[in-house]
Amino acid sequence: MDDKSMLAIAREEAILGRDEGGVPIGAALFTADGELLGRGHNRRVQDDDPSMHAETAAFRAAGRRPHYRDTVMVTTLSPCWYCSGLVRQFGIGRVVIGEAETFHGGHDWLAEHGVAISVLGDPACVALMREFIAARPELWFEDIGKD
Amino acid sequence: MDDKSMLAIAREEAILGRDEGGVPIGAALFTADGELLGRGHNRRVQDDDPSMHAETAAFRAAGRRPHYRDTVMVTTLSPCWYCSGLVRQFGIGRVVIGEAETFHGGHDWLAEHGVAISVLGDPACVALMREFIAARPELWFEDIGKD
Repeated sequence: MDDKSMLAIAREEAILGRDEGGVPIGAALFTADGELLGRGHNRRVQDDDPSMHAETAAFRAAGRRPHYRDTVMVTTLSPCWYCSGLVRQFGIGRVVIGEAETFHGGHDWLAEHGVAISVLGDPACVALMREFIAARPELWFEDIGKD
Repeated sequence: MDDKSMLAIAREEAILGRDEGGVPIGAALFTADGELLGRGHNRRVQDDDPSMHAETAAFRAAGRRPHYRDTVMVTTLSPCWYCSGLVRQFGIGRVVIGEAETFHGGHDWLAEHGVAISVLGDPACVALMREFIAARPELWFEDIGKD
């Protein structure tokens, strides 16, 4: 499965989150061969749970694994420090990012620490975030701990 | 409430986790004035959930908040990159750490980024981890993504 096809699944998750009234960020964890291990989206609003960012939701959905070095985290948005820390701690080998225009998280730091990073610059992902930030700025700032 | 009293609550959580057969790491989130906001422990084994480290469990239990700058994360063990990323992203102002002998996570990095760090060197926290790592090394390595 190529990067765009993997991103399409993360974007489906983001759209599910938007349609539920939540933060429209989605993610999915794959093997390097493109097998889907887990997918999910931000659930701050839906579950009243500030710990469920999209990447943590996908990681959780993938279940327990002995290691992650052959896995790829695909996310619609540049991962925040929380989710970048997840990638570094668990040794996820590669991160595919829909866009890093509306938010620039920790992906440069991950690259410095040997994680392969691909930023796709996907216009649909940018549009999802631009619409969300314009409509719900207070929810967005809450989600990234800015006030 | 002083640091030792706050740590005692995190240590109670770690012991609960040990007695459930899980990874014996506990945490609690307080206000700067010592009001308990949330407490929890690692739930990898109990919930089959690799995303529930002690700090994320305490953060989740505290619920949604507009900001965290006046909060203190208290944890029995130096926070891994995942949990250090949580602290940095959400702007938690201070971290109190039971011990950093059996595992050295991201607390130096947090200090470089302005987070107040206190390492208490608590012998009971050290003993909990030493016993656990000796008894269940494979579970410990899984929990920190090492193999």
